[in-house]
This record gives sequence, C-alpha cells and structure tokens, in this order.
Amino acid sequence: MELNISESRSRSIRCIVKLGGAAITCKNELEKIHDENLEVVACQLRQAMLEGSAPSKVIGMDWSKRPGSSEISCDVDDIGDQKSSEFSKFVVVHGAGSFGHFQASRSGVHKGGLEKPIVKAGFVATRISVTNLNLEIVRALAREGIPTIGMSPFSCGWSTSKRDVASADLATVAKTIDSGFVPVLHGDAVLDNILGCTILSGDVIIRHLADHLKPEYVVFLTDVLGVYDRPPSPSEPDAVLLKEIAVGEDGSWKVVNPLLEHTDKKVDYSVAAHDTTGGMETKISEAAMIAKLGVDVYIVKAATTHSQRALNGDLRDSVPEDWLGTIIRFSK
Amino acid sequence: MELNISESRSRSIRCIVKLGGAAITCKNELEKIHDENLEVVACQLRQAMLEGSAPSKVIGMDWSKRPGSSEISCDVDDIGDQKSSEFSKFVVVHGAGSFGHFQASRSGVHKGGLEKPIVKAGFVATRISVTNLNLEIVRALAREGIPTIGMSPFSCGWSTSKRDVASADLATVAKTIDSGFVPVLHGDAVLDNILGCTILSGDVIIRHLADHLKPEYVVFLTDVLGVYDRPPSPSEPDAVLLKEIAVGEDGSWKVVNPLLEHTDKKVDYSVAAHDTTGGMETKISEAAMIAKLGVDVYIVKAATTHSQRALNGDLRDSVPEDWLGTIIRFSK
Repeated sequence: MELNISESRSRSIRCIVKLGGAAITCKNELEKIHDENLEVVACQLRQAMLEGSAPSKVIGMDWSKRPGSSEISCDVDDIGDQKSSEFSKFVVVHGAGSFGHFQASRSGVHKGGLEKPIVKAGFVATRISVTNLNLEIVRALAREGIPTIGMSPFSCGWSTSKRDVASADLATVAKTIDSGFVPVLHGDAVLDNILGCTILSGDVIIRHLADHLKPEYVVFLTDVLGVYDRPPSPSEPDAVLLKEIAVGEDGSWKVVNPLLEHTDKKVDYSVAAHDTTGGMETKISEAAMIAKLGVDVYIVKAATTHSQRALNGDLRDSVPEDWLGTIIRFSK
Repeated sequence: MELNISESRSRSIRCIVKLGGAAITCKNELEKIHDENLEVVACQLRQAMLEGSAPSKVIGMDWSKRPGSSEISCDVDDIGDQKSSEFSKFVVVHGAGSFGHFQASRSGVHKGGLEKPIVKAGFVATRISVTNLNLEIVRALAREGIPTIGMSPFSCGWSTSKRDVASADLATVAKTIDSGFVPVLHGDAVLDNILGCTILSGDVIIRHLADHLKPEYVVFLTDVLGVYDRPPSPSEPDAVLLKEIAVGEDGSWKVVNPLLEHTDKKVDYSVAAHDTTGGMETKISEAAMIAKLGVDVYIVKAATTHSQRALNGDLRDSVPEDWLGTIIRFSK
C-alpha cells in the first residue's frame, strides 16, 4: 500500500508538527489542557499554513454545543460566499502530556501482557484518555479554521513489533492530506505482535511519517527553548542552549553551534522530563534519524515568536541570530 | 486484506449490535446523550457477553478524571487478583442521533462537494460531533467493564463510492476482536471517490461487517418496540407491530407474523424518524440484506427485557410468545 503514496501525492507535504505533551497540557494537573498555549499554537499553525497568502476570515469548524448552551455555535450563513483558504500541507502529531500517562504507567501497558486484567483495563483507559485529548486538540485547531481530522493510530492500523512500527495505514493519511485536511495523530496504545501491546510514542510516529511522507521540515513544539547541554532549571543557570546539531551519515551527531569547549563531553540533554515514552534520549535519536533523511528538525518553545518562525519555514535558508531553538540537520 | 480475515479468526463473532441514535441520545436536544438508556444498554451488553457464565466483579476501564474532581477514578489495587471475564465476541456500531445531525444537514456533507468551504467545514464539524459521541459511548461501556475500543470508520480507512462501501480496513477490526476487545464503530463522514465526501451510515457499516464477519445474529436497538405497519404514535393506536419478516433468496421480504389481512398492502414502516441517513426504508432493506446472508436480525426497543433477550441470543432457537420486537430472517 505504501508504494503508491508518492504517486498519489499531487503536492508535497510541507511540515510535520509535533505538539509536545508538555507544551499543550498542564504537567502538574491530571488531564488538563493548557488552553492558552493551545490557542496560540492553533493560531500560529494557521498563519504558517497560509504561507504568506492574504489571511481570509477564519471559518470556524467546531460547531459543537458549548458547555452551558443549548445552541450550536456556527455562522453557516457567513460561510456561503467565503473563499476557501489555500493551506499548505501539514500533519500534526501530539503527545499525551498529563493525559494517558497515569493510566499507562499504573497498568504497565507499555510492557505488554494483555492477558492480565489490569493491562487490558489500562489499555482501554489509556486509549480513552488520549483520544479525549485528541478530540480537544482537533476542536481547538478547527475553531481556528484548520480543517483537522483526528486519526487515532490504533484505528489507522498502526501496530508494533517490540515497539518498532510493524504496520501503519499511511495510504489513509496520505489520502486525507490530499483531500485538503490536516490529519491529527497522537501517541497511542497499540497492539504489539511480540509483547501483546505497548505504547507507540508520538516521536516514533513522526519518524515513520517523515520517512514515508518526506516533509520539507519537522517542528517539535515543546515547553523549553530547545535542547540544552544539561536540564535547564533555576539551579542550573549555566545550562547552554544547543543551537545546531549536525547529524552524520552513520546517524552520529555533534553540536556545531555553540562550539562547546569539551566536545567529547557527553551532553546531559533534557527538553521535557514529563515524557514517559523515552524522554530526551529517545527524542534526540528520533530527531537525528529524521535529519538523516535530509529533513531539517527544529525543536522550539511553543507559543513564542521562535516557534512561529520555525513553523513558517523561515529557518530553511538561513537562521537569524536572534532565533532561539535547536536545529538538527544532516551534514555530509 | 479481507481474504485473510476468516483465517485469522480463532473464534467466531457472536453478535453485531447497533445502538440506534434515537435510543442513546435525546432526540429533542442537540448533542445530549440519553444517559439512563445508555447505562442500561451497557449493563445488558455486559450480561449478554458473559453468556451465562458467573458474573465476576466489574472492572471499570474508564479511568478518566470526573468533572469537578482532580483525581482519577480507578481502583487499580482492586484489580490485581481479579480473574479476567471471558467475554464472547461482540462488535458495536452506533448511530448519530442528535450528534452530527445538525452539522451534516446544515452543510450538506452527504451530498459531497468538498471544494465548497461550507461542506469542508461541515465535514470537520460532523466528525468532531460524532467522534465526541463515540468517546462518550466507549466510556459508558468501559465503565461497565466492557473492553471497548473506539474505531472511527474514517480513520479505519472506510471510504465510499457513491455512498456504497468502497474500502474498509476490516483486518484491523478483526485483529481488535481477536485481541479480546470490543470495537465500537459509528456512522461517520467519509471520503467518497465520486462525490468527494458523504455520510456513511451505521446501518451500511453493519451490513458490510455482517457480510465479512458472519456473526450469529445482529441486534438493532431502537426507541420503539420494533417495526410497525405504520408509524406508531398516539394518533395511530392501531399500528401493528410486525413480529416476523421473512426474506427470500431474491431479497424480497414479507410479513409472516402477524398475518396481515392485506398482505399486498404496502407497509408504511417507520421505526425512527430521527434518522437522516435513509430512514426506515433503508433500515429494512439493510436488515433484509443481512438476513439474506443467513444472519438473523432482531429490531427491538433498547433498555427493555426484550432487548436483553435479543442480545443474549435467546431468540435463536424459538421466540417466546411474550417477546416484543421484530425478527427479520432468511427463509428458503
């Protein structure tokens, strides 16, 4: 099925965006969305997708009943003579943050063992929590006029073999994009043909999508400025933001900006501690694998001017001095 | 892909259940679930799935935060030494009722034309509404200890060709069932390769599933006792409940119980007027097509003793005199 994807693409994918769980949920409160951040992220995404074309009026696409109201909120009459906005092709993948995390870790879903009642219950509970988050993100983006389609990896036929992607219905993702929609996938509980079940992280999904859809660039939106040489915190005022990481043909990577004094020193990297699906080590190696495909990766703080520039693709040719974030790119 | 399904099934599917939109939502209030009915339906489903085996303690599988609480509701410690209940294989498909209906009809999604801004917006809005309902139904069944997995037809690769099913990833549905879960599908907005897009009704999904999964029987839960010879209402006290309809090899059907005086009289059938995806004419002909496969179809009022008996499969051998509902079955 995957063989036909490039044929069916009439226009290439511009960007895959990861909405990090830490950026869009409140990490210290269970199942709580960071509404302010999510609203800004939606607005920046729309900006970026319009690619400099004149912004038309936002056509809200979440016509759900609002809490406390018995009415549907939709100005259908206003839409009639609106021109359709011409959006470039984006795919969104989000993490779980404070959704799904409790359910997955209490039941040990990532370790497999579906025959155990607690794992089976935790599998169902995890999927309920992450699909709930998915729905809320789809709604937030739709309110901003982005034609989003929630696509749960489990339902889309994603399964794993010892946590590596074993199958995925990328044809449906590609068809959704070609029909002018923005698929919104997420980290999910899936079946694993060795372990029985596991957690498929958003980062692994992005690598798989990048490999098959070959976007121009990938943006990871997170809750700190980028990748540091050690976990940034008030007690670590000297943590250095790594602005550029070069990835070699063998997948190894090194920091090229700033030039660190001890380049052989192991970077104690950390972006988002609030991530149970592998943390920063997974994140950098996933990003390096994407960069190895020739796709630039930008890791940047969500809802800032820096994230807007990254989403817009402003960094493709040259990186402005005042841009803060981490670029991971292939270097021959 | 569909060819391998029967091979991969280790045990056959017992029942496909349609939760009619009119039975599980409040038809006169937008996007409002009929909580009492849904709770009874979930309880009856669990009963039926246990197939007479000793009912074990319910292991709740919705560990979401409840409104107004900051805590997750989950007694993980209680589960540890519970034995897993042995459920027989069910598939659930639900309609939209007062969800999705407004969004679909205001935008004309069923007629296609994705290039129009209003259709595109309505497509997104419809999917948000029906996936919201799907999540709530999955949660209600999971609270009752049923290991449910929400599967949106759009994401599962269902698409149509002039409203007929053109593709569907049944392999993922079958794999989900074989892993001990209960897939919960629903009427959905999908891509149509002639019209651009349309609405795929829950009834059409059921026929397609029945054709490929060959369940022992199919139950339609609705909001009246069954199929009548004319729309039942206070002003039609003489409406007659059709207890048995026989379907011939050519797909034609006739009422065999009660024996109507004028059997050539066209039945002015109506079960649920609150159904925009074809109404009763579609429903009977879909049911007849299922019956033609040799699969008994029971149309019955949700949350009654009659629905419990139908779900249990009590009607397979003989139909008790006091059972109220409509049986549609194949007759050579």
